[in-house]
Amino acid sequence: MGIHEECGLFGIYDGSASANVALSTYYGLYALQHRGQESCGITVNDDGILTSYKDVGLAHEVFDQDRLLSLGKGKMAIGHVRYSGDGVANRLNAQPLMVRHIKGPLAVAHNGALINGHELKEELEMTGAIFHTTCDAEIIAYMITRARLASKSIEEALEIAMTKLKGAYSLVIMSPKKIIAARDPQGFRPLCLGTIDGGYVVASETCALDSIGAKFLRDVEPGEIVILDENGLRSNRTHCGGKTGLCVFEYVYTARPDSVIDGVSVHAARLKAGAILAQEHPVEADVVIGVPDSGLDAALGYARESGIPYGIGFIKNRYVGRTFILPTQAERVEAVHIKLNVLADTVKGKRVIMVDDSIVRGTTSANIVRMLREAGATEVHMRVSSPPFINPCYFGTDIDDKDKLIACKMSIEEIGKQIGVDSLGYLSVDGIKRIAEGAHCDFCTGCFTGVYPIEVPEKMPVDKFCYKISEEV
Amino acid sequence: MGIHEECGLFGIYDGSASANVALSTYYGLYALQHRGQESCGITVNDDGILTSYKDVGLAHEVFDQDRLLSLGKGKMAIGHVRYSGDGVANRLNAQPLMVRHIKGPLAVAHNGALINGHELKEELEMTGAIFHTTCDAEIIAYMITRARLASKSIEEALEIAMTKLKGAYSLVIMSPKKIIAARDPQGFRPLCLGTIDGGYVVASETCALDSIGAKFLRDVEPGEIVILDENGLRSNRTHCGGKTGLCVFEYVYTARPDSVIDGVSVHAARLKAGAILAQEHPVEADVVIGVPDSGLDAALGYARESGIPYGIGFIKNRYVGRTFILPTQAERVEAVHIKLNVLADTVKGKRVIMVDDSIVRGTTSANIVRMLREAGATEVHMRVSSPPFINPCYFGTDIDDKDKLIACKMSIEEIGKQIGVDSLGYLSVDGIKRIAEGAHCDFCTGCFTGVYPIEVPEKMPVDKFCYKISEEV
Amino acid sequence: MGIHEECGLFGIYDGSASANVALSTYYGLYALQHRGQESCGITVNDDGILTSYKDVGLAHEVFDQDRLLSLGKGKMAIGHVRYSGDGVANRLNAQPLMVRHIKGPLAVAHNGALINGHELKEELEMTGAIFHTTCDAEIIAYMITRARLASKSIEEALEIAMTKLKGAYSLVIMSPKKIIAARDPQGFRPLCLGTIDGGYVVASETCALDSIGAKFLRDVEPGEIVILDENGLRSNRTHCGGKTGLCVFEYVYTARPDSVIDGVSVHAARLKAGAILAQEHPVEADVVIGVPDSGLDAALGYARESGIPYGIGFIKNRYVGRTFILPTQAERVEAVHIKLNVLADTVKGKRVIMVDDSIVRGTTSANIVRMLREAGATEVHMRVSSPPFINPCYFGTDIDDKDKLIACKMSIEEIGKQIGVDSLGYLSVDGIKRIAEGAHCDFCTGCFTGVYPIEVPEKMPVDKFCYKISEEV
Amino acid sequence: MGIHEECGLFGIYDGSASANVALSTYYGLYALQHRGQESCGITVNDDGILTSYKDVGLAHEVFDQDRLLSLGKGKMAIGHVRYSGDGVANRLNAQPLMVRHIKGPLAVAHNGALINGHELKEELEMTGAIFHTTCDAEIIAYMITRARLASKSIEEALEIAMTKLKGAYSLVIMSPKKIIAARDPQGFRPLCLGTIDGGYVVASETCALDSIGAKFLRDVEPGEIVILDENGLRSNRTHCGGKTGLCVFEYVYTARPDSVIDGVSVHAARLKAGAILAQEHPVEADVVIGVPDSGLDAALGYARESGIPYGIGFIKNRYVGRTFILPTQAERVEAVHIKLNVLADTVKGKRVIMVDDSIVRGTTSANIVRMLREAGATEVHMRVSSPPFINPCYFGTDIDDKDKLIACKMSIEEIGKQIGVDSLGYLSVDGIKRIAEGAHCDFCTGCFTGVYPIEVPEKMPVDKFCYKISEEV
Repeated sequence: MGIHEECGLFGIYDGSASANVALSTYYGLYALQHRGQESCGITVNDDGILTSYKDVGLAHEVFDQDRLLSLGKGKMAIGHVRYSGDGVANRLNAQPLMVRHIKGPLAVAHNGALINGHELKEELEMTGAIFHTTCDAEIIAYMITRARLASKSIEEALEIAMTKLKGAYSLVIMSPKKIIAARDPQGFRPLCLGTIDGGYVVASETCALDSIGAKFLRDVEPGEIVILDENGLRSNRTHCGGKTGLCVFEYVYTARPDSVIDGVSVHAARLKAGAILAQEHPVEADVVIGVPDSGLDAALGYARESGIPYGIGFIKNRYVGRTFILPTQAERVEAVHIKLNVLADTVKGKRVIMVDDSIVRGTTSANIVRMLREAGATEVHMRVSSPPFINPCYFGTDIDDKDKLIACKMSIEEIGKQIGVDSLGYLSVDGIKRIAEGAHCDFCTGCFTGVYPIEVPEKMPVDKFCYKISEEV
Repeated sequence: MGIHEECGLFGIYDGSASANVALSTYYGLYALQHRGQESCGITVNDDGILTSYKDVGLAHEVFDQDRLLSLGKGKMAIGHVRYSGDGVANRLNAQPLMVRHIKGPLAVAHNGALINGHELKEELEMTGAIFHTTCDAEIIAYMITRARLASKSIEEALEIAMTKLKGAYSLVIMSPKKIIAARDPQGFRPLCLGTIDGGYVVASETCALDSIGAKFLRDVEPGEIVILDENGLRSNRTHCGGKTGLCVFEYVYTARPDSVIDGVSVHAARLKAGAILAQEHPVEADVVIGVPDSGLDAALGYARESGIPYGIGFIKNRYVGRTFILPTQAERVEAVHIKLNVLADTVKGKRVIMVDDSIVRGTTSANIVRMLREAGATEVHMRVSSPPFINPCYFGTDIDDKDKLIACKMSIEEIGKQIGVDSLGYLSVDGIKRIAEGAHCDFCTGCFTGVYPIEVPEKMPVDKFCYKISEEV
Repeated sequence: MGIHEECGLFGIYDGSASANVALSTYYGLYALQHRGQESCGITVNDDGILTSYKDVGLAHEVFDQDRLLSLGKGKMAIGHVRYSGDGVANRLNAQPLMVRHIKGPLAVAHNGALINGHELKEELEMTGAIFHTTCDAEIIAYMITRARLASKSIEEALEIAMTKLKGAYSLVIMSPKKIIAARDPQGFRPLCLGTIDGGYVVASETCALDSIGAKFLRDVEPGEIVILDENGLRSNRTHCGGKTGLCVFEYVYTARPDSVIDGVSVHAARLKAGAILAQEHPVEADVVIGVPDSGLDAALGYARESGIPYGIGFIKNRYVGRTFILPTQAERVEAVHIKLNVLADTVKGKRVIMVDDSIVRGTTSANIVRMLREAGATEVHMRVSSPPFINPCYFGTDIDDKDKLIACKMSIEEIGKQIGVDSLGYLSVDGIKRIAEGAHCDFCTGCFTGVYPIEVPEKMPVDKFCYKISEEV
Repeated sequence: MGIHEECGLFGIYDGSASANVALSTYYGLYALQHRGQESCGITVNDDGILTSYKDVGLAHEVFDQDRLLSLGKGKMAIGHVRYSGDGVANRLNAQPLMVRHIKGPLAVAHNGALINGHELKEELEMTGAIFHTTCDAEIIAYMITRARLASKSIEEALEIAMTKLKGAYSLVIMSPKKIIAARDPQGFRPLCLGTIDGGYVVASETCALDSIGAKFLRDVEPGEIVILDENGLRSNRTHCGGKTGLCVFEYVYTARPDSVIDGVSVHAARLKAGAILAQEHPVEADVVIGVPDSGLDAALGYARESGIPYGIGFIKNRYVGRTFILPTQAERVEAVHIKLNVLADTVKGKRVIMVDDSIVRGTTSANIVRMLREAGATEVHMRVSSPPFINPCYFGTDIDDKDKLIACKMSIEEIGKQIGVDSLGYLSVDGIKRIAEGAHCDFCTGCFTGVYPIEVPEKMPVDKFCYKISEEV
């Protein structure tokens, strides 16, 4: 399946050059850190001269004050945080990708995953292309560059390139004169526009706008190309209008609760998921608790709907990253016990409803349930605010191989037994489709249903060469 | 006032040497990280040979796997995390302090603050002592060492030294043959005992016991000296029985909610604080929200007591440390906006009750209140789960200078106006005394009342020498 | 003039996989460190899988033992040390350059400078190429890759590519199955072959062979392509036989004295340069001293020829790098005094002949002469073991801009006055041509004479885009 | 024997505060780097406030520009480079040692080794002293501090302390108001005074004065205490006038050739050692070569005296430290081949005289001799510019244990056979006494003769506690 890239994008065009665009980008990436913690980069454009720095690590690890200042000033900057699904924290694959082509330099930041990446790569190589990275961003950069040879502008080149790109791609691109933002026709990944001090901001989520005090304008539409330059904001909607399919898991897990995506608040969607869950899987109990952090909102929604008191059931060690997002499985497993502790007070002698956003392999859930019982919970009822994962994601969410997904191997009843709960209830597929009612687009629920908004390959090709370009941590 | 040290202590005696004591200590410190984020150290005792490593930084920054393994194995280890109230992240002051005296090596880890440190230091210097650090731990090490010259054991020496030490000190000490834990007669700072696999564990909070799967035994009593060695656990209670005064702010802010201190759960105490607050300062409203992280429990308590719905009002960026604990004021201020975002959904068009644990200078609160209003809250009622700070702490909690404490300069009404709320209510002194009913000891509420469990100096002496020993970040 | 790259190359093919090829490469680079101190990289080939690590810094800074071991084992490895003439220590430009093309991965290490790099780059970009670095190595990689599309092997592709490459390039290339070494038809930069334990080694200088105990076989001929694979060593001499022009400055300064290049020992060439200098510019004096390190051999040659005693006149601080090779002029200037000290004993009251390899701007020489006089030298006669620099080098030696070269602005007499010597003598052009008599090739003396072995552009094109790809120290 | 400390000291008192004393100290340490490469530190005194930074590493590794500037400005600074004979690069033992005593802060930098350190330590511990390091500097700091209690000034305290200190100690001490330099009554280790811009400089060697452009004034006399403060330079000679014994090995190996110690140039002493060696052990040969770096001067002296041509026989890789000074034996052995290469041209077909400064275990010499033969030398005659080591040094030079010293186990003839030379000649004890004729003091030749200027203990006590204070690389 190539490399999945759950990433965060940010760009700022400040015509008046009143802000420090590098600093604004840094704060934006900081707010988007939850979308990718393996590498981070910023490119600043000072009157056509692009200066870039990127490395593996969190934003505050890669950039200290000196480093940030060394990027200089300018009217524009773009930035990227990256999570690599292949578990390799790789300096080479850090973005923005910086290349130079016939018309000058180009910086490319990408969130998503192409499903025809291998085909495009092979086509490009057949005409002499060489690749330095294993990122889809490099394929995209080539496609734009080639199109640019026969077109009048970088935005026109992007429009042409998009006819060939299949899959998920939210893009923030910077040339010497402009920033271009685009979203694939299905709009798999979010991308939004804001404004501050007369300039424009583009970001994966609205929380990044908030963090720098920018005002939300609107989402970039699926298929839309937005150009930010000295003439302000322009839009090309040639590729708009097709069937859309925003990843519904953005609401359940990926995005920050304080973001609003395609018209719906993530927090509200999670509350609603909890509420529907309470309708679909009611049970008598004394307290409803959420597994931090992404299960908390759904737990509150469940509690409100059911009338069962909401409680704080776990304390999470504040000095860790996110389980889901750590690179290797080994680390995922061993970190569980150290990361979470039960608040015995809340659960002792109680019938507990525990809400989480998903179950992947089931080992983490089993550990947590055991902790609850050891702390004195008399019953544990698990409720999951999404349906079971049973299919791969081709569009940039890192899900385990099928043979490791517990829901591919067991019935729900068996899963409940395996993780040791008194009852287990998943949100229904129908339910998840309703958590973000009123959104401006349809959803992709492929990982739950096997039905994707665009045709997916029967089998993802395996790379025909064995090689490894590593330049790493 | 010298240097305040809000710190975390950990020690493990594993007679069977079945565990990796360095790793257990690491996990213990990791669980206690909230008590000190500026430096960290571990000392391992392998059959009388003490090996130590310490540096500035968080536990996971100071210790990677190689570093931890390089400490070797042994039957005992102690560890320390430190927060320096003077804002200097200093490698020299990192603990455990390692010294060698006439009878061999000694490792000392300390949490608290002596009020007669200057006098003792001067006395020691008058007889030729030299100091390498500015830690009270070094004074304590000297006092023990001097006493050791005329006594038969290190525990006897500690008993003698304790007759001269005044103030707050929870101690974990390691000699070639044993670990000794002790708590000052007032018991200002917590310290508890646990057991695992036949061995013993000592830690500042029970959450550290939980993190390694140890079972809680009991608290170390105020004034008690506990000896852990090949003969098991022994106790010396010579200094027990006086007037006690556990810092009540441990329940409000310092400790982790999943810890149980002197018989009372921190989480329960915070819920109760919220409940009393609701009784003392009721108000009509639509939602109760807490300021993360330490205001959340009290908010839930307020909501339950008042019947007003509990909501999630803020999202905190998970990739930051704790405001209170950052070293310089400058950093405290500028970090506010980047760290917290309002969940507009929760507060828009609502009358909001916002619960926080304390107000120090008022600037942070004012910023947060403004954010709530910008997000559409129609009313903001602030409730504080502790009384106003109006007095210094002499016992290890870092509170601002009086001239910076807003409650020293304004009436409550003025404060409310200053921070922009519709109403403001603090927990009463009487109320805070009731949040941990059933605890095995009395409380120090000196920072609120000016009444301390032991006599405090009228004026803390200013160091008569201008000097600076820095060896730092 | 683009970027000059004075670099060091190393490659090892060990069919029996008996050695640790990464370690051998490391030692080889360590021996070649004088050829480039700004970045360093090694690529190991384990049965077709290429693993690479590179970064800015000296070999021992970039690679510690763990890092080296992490490259794994294999039959082949290549390595590179780089000095960038543009003064930018740049992680991106570190080599070996690792790319993937239609036939698999390719690692390219290059020493030299193309004179038609800009033209080739433009041609490539016109057909959609994108560039990630500013290295000629990337242009070369593209040229090979494009040729590979229509040829049967990587060596055939290189042969074709070489018809278009103009300028200086010694190359060590690695594909999944083989190592290929090549030298441009003029043989501007050295490259030699050795053997060890039945395997083969290729290196910029013989000192790298010595460092791992390999036996010298022969030089790679100008224009020759050498293939090392499971069939042993093969050679393609299609491009051999033209007019050759080894950079004579390799003997004077660049190479290590213990290397033998194209049949002549560097040490012997320097002794001879000193001897000819003594014939051309005799003077009565009491002692001959050399400026460390590269002036020492010529000084000894001068002393022997003249019969004037050789003395040790300077002590160089062993803990510094090489003046010439530091990136910025500022650093070159200020470092002089700290780096060298005069041995007063040797020069006090004496008439001194001071031999150095070259004079660039004259400032360093003036400083040194002043130091000698302050130490009591009664006369200072400077002798330079090469003719005056008056022309640019297009082939990879970093020489200052013409307007900074003292010999472009002053007569020899004026120079002598400027730097404060009693007499000044340069080796003649005729003389320098004789320092390596018996070499297997002719020399390029273009920087002294303006006559180059191949046609040079009247004016090097200036890059038409202002841009800066930095990812750096 | 405790820890030997071959160290370098530097101090500057600049009454006019015209220089940046931190920078001057940095350059001074840089010039003294050959005396210690394991740790490095600088303490700056700004009007009584002492600021210090130290760490393991070379001067340029420990201090970058920012770090140096962070030390601030002031009228005084002292610095230290350290080589630990125990092979432990230890952050704790880095100097200047910074302590605070009854009268204020004190910074202590020490070169040498006490022979009664254990006794003093025990005495101190008997009265309650605790030790943080394993440095003699800490013992010295205590002795001064204790004496200070009953004396009027720090210099008077030092005078009193010196009555108890036995062994080698050159000291540079800084209090809030002054710098004090002192040398033990035997003057085992060098220490000299210089002046610059009306201020004063103290340093281990004159090369450090030269490096900052200071003018040499005179050596600190054995037993002398020199005070530098606002009243200029004062001297206390109470302890002067006894039997002196400068370590003669300072001339042979330790010091830099461009330094002048107690009236004699190190370079001149080495030339003379070579000349005497030529008289004592003449042999017919074609070329005389020296083993870099410390054998070069003696080789030139031998060549001049014998009339046999001097040649350059070896090239040393410039990117390494000094063999002798690397911490572990393992590293000493394996590094030989990588560090040195033979200049085949110089020795091929020749009868070679190879001069080195010493033979310790013989393994390095054997390797070098083998390299010479492989390069074609027909005969190899080794000459050593010092007598055989057969006794321990108690005064700060790190010599191997007796059971590893080849000269303790074999006759000279056997050694020659072992290392594979055709003949072997050591400088005689009588000869070494004459290499620095005219020096202002007598020499200690104890390591050659077993006769020391002061009584040495029959057996150095072994530390009675097993412990290890490590805080390390």
